[in-house]
Amino acid sequence: MTTQQLTEQIKKKKSFLCIGLDVDLNKIPKHLLQEEDPIFAFNKAIIDATHHLCVAYKPNTAFYEAYGLKGWKALKKTIMYLNVKYPEIFTIADAKRGDIGNTSRMYAKAFLEDLAFDSVTVAPYMGKDSVEPFLEVKNKHTILLALTSNAGAFDFQTLNVNQNELYKQVLETSKTWENSENLMYVVGATKAEYLADIRKIIPEAFLLVPGVGAQGGNLQDVCKYGMTSNVGLLVNSSRGIIYASNDEDFDQAAAQKAEDLQKEMAKELKS
Amino acid sequence: MTTQQLTEQIKKKKSFLCIGLDVDLNKIPKHLLQEEDPIFAFNKAIIDATHHLCVAYKPNTAFYEAYGLKGWKALKKTIMYLNVKYPEIFTIADAKRGDIGNTSRMYAKAFLEDLAFDSVTVAPYMGKDSVEPFLEVKNKHTILLALTSNAGAFDFQTLNVNQNELYKQVLETSKTWENSENLMYVVGATKAEYLADIRKIIPEAFLLVPGVGAQGGNLQDVCKYGMTSNVGLLVNSSRGIIYASNDEDFDQAAAQKAEDLQKEMAKELKS
Repeated sequence: MTTQQLTEQIKKKKSFLCIGLDVDLNKIPKHLLQEEDPIFAFNKAIIDATHHLCVAYKPNTAFYEAYGLKGWKALKKTIMYLNVKYPEIFTIADAKRGDIGNTSRMYAKAFLEDLAFDSVTVAPYMGKDSVEPFLEVKNKHTILLALTSNAGAFDFQTLNVNQNELYKQVLETSKTWENSENLMYVVGATKAEYLADIRKIIPEAFLLVPGVGAQGGNLQDVCKYGMTSNVGLLVNSSRGIIYASNDEDFDQAAAQKAEDLQKEMAKELKS
Repeated sequence: MTTQQLTEQIKKKKSFLCIGLDVDLNKIPKHLLQEEDPIFAFNKAIIDATHHLCVAYKPNTAFYEAYGLKGWKALKKTIMYLNVKYPEIFTIADAKRGDIGNTSRMYAKAFLEDLAFDSVTVAPYMGKDSVEPFLEVKNKHTILLALTSNAGAFDFQTLNVNQNELYKQVLETSKTWENSENLMYVVGATKAEYLADIRKIIPEAFLLVPGVGAQGGNLQDVCKYGMTSNVGLLVNSSRGIIYASNDEDFDQAAAQKAEDLQKEMAKELKS
């Protein structure tokens, strides 16, 4: 998917919502546990109930790996279901990978080619040759960790290097990499006030913004400082939507929470 | 496994060799492709032929994920085979994970509890709360990326923060984390001259040293600058050992290469 197609979808749906599919078997409705594949059954119901309110889904691979083979099967079924039934939706493998060149190439194959996600999240610590293999894949996107939403972001990401915080150096340096037009960036909503500075370095790139909802970030601030003429934002909510209820009506409760956010987003898109 | 048990094994085998099980179906002997599970068949043969010459095995998860479900099955069979048949061997899931707290906890469950690896490699970019969930698991080890063996290491890891290179700041800061006694560190052999400085910060911690062999690192330098009274080193070789031959004798050829390294290591342990 191109970023232009993504922007078109955002404008059509009046939403830049990404829903995080972080499925924890301890938190999903009890009646689903009788299904042959409870994780996929949960995802399918959530997707069917919310696809018109969001533009992206983001399964976090950790939640699937934690269930071993069963988890990987569910992840595969989820992405296949999305790619076949809702091909207009942007898909993100939230995998936070990154390794030496020949190894990153294997991860790129796994997520962008075989599973056919539109994008994958990647950690920048190992530098250029750990990221470029992901950027090589045509019409796919690499979402680089810049400034994350957790407390630990202040351990290294905000330290000064060359009179610049490390995350800004990551942004600057990554712009020099081959196929850097395929880059997007993770910037946590809990640090919305940093977005004005970030936009000076990367005025147009899409940002994946976690941390609205459960982690305490604020949508208005994110839009005020981060929105571009092409929107340039994907705001993620995971737990706040998918665990809105754990009764039989869980999918409708999730849709309600998604609609609440979508309506706020529609306002921001107008203003 | 405790580090003391690891050191005992090193002294008994006169080896601190770790063998990287990075299985690429394009590189393994053709006759194995007829097996039901060629990846596991390859690993089993390599392990049976080399287990007396090394103290650790390190499957890189990328190579398994690249084969989807088939790959994850092979990874699971490999770690189960190691844990049952060679329980004295130290096992490393080279996964380079790291995410916000609740997500890192899922990765810790996947690799250290369910798959029951002795250790897992973790990226430091997201800081304390992304690493501590791994450190909580008793008698398991978290191998933090410090200074990696690839060219991209110079993009961020060696930049100056607080008059200190970033990788040194990672070492310093990580020592303050809870259960930091469960930390080991990745330091590339291609940068052996940095080891003297590194040992000033972490005098005793085990280092996992990739980059000997295919990537051009030198064993003597690694030992000169990095070895401690408890050895404190695991030196990894992957491609240089496992792809020594792709004929029917591949396992014996791998054992020969492993023995060459083991003999060099025995000399270093004496001196």
